[in-house]
Amino acid sequence: MDAIRSAGQGPPGMTGSTRTPRPPGRPRSQEADTAILTAALDLLIELGAAQTSIEQVARRAGVTRATVYRRFAGKTELLVRALELANHDHDPDFTGWRDIEHMFGDWAAHLAVPRHRTLLRRLTGTVDDYPELGRTYRLVNGGQRRAYVREMLSRARDLGELPTDVDVDVLGDDILTGAVLNHLGTHPDDESADEIKAYFMRIMKQLGYRPAVTKGRQRI
Amino acid sequence: MDAIRSAGQGPPGMTGSTRTPRPPGRPRSQEADTAILTAALDLLIELGAAQTSIEQVARRAGVTRATVYRRFAGKTELLVRALELANHDHDPDFTGWRDIEHMFGDWAAHLAVPRHRTLLRRLTGTVDDYPELGRTYRLVNGGQRRAYVREMLSRARDLGELPTDVDVDVLGDDILTGAVLNHLGTHPDDESADEIKAYFMRIMKQLGYRPAVTKGRQRI
Repeated sequence: MDAIRSAGQGPPGMTGSTRTPRPPGRPRSQEADTAILTAALDLLIELGAAQTSIEQVARRAGVTRATVYRRFAGKTELLVRALELANHDHDPDFTGWRDIEHMFGDWAAHLAVPRHRTLLRRLTGTVDDYPELGRTYRLVNGGQRRAYVREMLSRARDLGELPTDVDVDVLGDDILTGAVLNHLGTHPDDESADEIKAYFMRIMKQLGYRPAVTKGRQRI
Repeated sequence: MDAIRSAGQGPPGMTGSTRTPRPPGRPRSQEADTAILTAALDLLIELGAAQTSIEQVARRAGVTRATVYRRFAGKTELLVRALELANHDHDPDFTGWRDIEHMFGDWAAHLAVPRHRTLLRRLTGTVDDYPELGRTYRLVNGGQRRAYVREMLSRARDLGELPTDVDVDVLGDDILTGAVLNHLGTHPDDESADEIKAYFMRIMKQLGYRPAVTKGRQRI
């Protein structure tokens, strides 16, 4: 009850929906949860995990510190939950890519958004102090998506677009993950999705990738 | 003069050399510099740039905060100088590698030291808040070393160990840098140098690398 009252002390600050009547079954406390998790994610991106405090999250969410502590055991749990929410919001109906070109186009579109880039860098930068954050991200992103990457690479191999002896695990887990990390660390944040996709295709070319349409001009 | 007196207020805490007479021409203020820079590098590795303060550096170096501020404009300059020192200490006579195997053996030996791994992760994690740190590291490490990497890759291509159409820039700058970043982020810190070298060789195999000695069994 206290939590509900506390949540009412300030605007959730999420959407303009506070003006419209709340639908039944969506309690006030869920609005506070969303406001807190959104504030936590924003601060994680802006300041990083180390510089984010429960106090700042409460202030930005428009709730008291006590409200935050009643819902989350501490900063790490709060940030982990914020990451989970961020991910569930991102394309929940995703069922895979059509082919390799489609996959890299999707990756490039994601990496062309500066906010996504900063979040990914924040996560890789927290390995030593907040290992739970990186683990959460890998769990949410790693499971099904990783299987789709392998499927795309295996299919390309079967189509003759990749060498028959390609190791899809080394390619997917090590080389392509590394290519993403390298792009985040060494390329400017204002590259377009087209430029980023071209970056991935340059790398794939070095791995022997030759799109089926230009197969006649393969490998010298 | 003040700086010299301040430096005398506490032990530099570097080596046991405070007991032995200082050689002529090595002023006390250089000892304080070294103590400050060593403390700064240690704290950068232990806590990260955001959590490191001038006050902590001064305390660990055994000098006053004023001494640190007289020598360095602020935290960023201090950390940049500490990084430069760390790098100059690391194998100043380095003139390149014999071949690719030697190069990856050297990288693996470096990456098998947890302290090196943490420092590299700290640097990649500071892109958004302390871009000068990453820039410094790339300047010191990037220039000559990058040229050596290209030379090794070009030589391997000329020996027939890499495909004739290999792009040594994409391979060196993007794929291999990415492979290092991926290892730092996704592999445990207790892997041996042998295991890490094997990781690089697995990646090189996907890039068509076939060592000259086993050339008869190349590519299926």
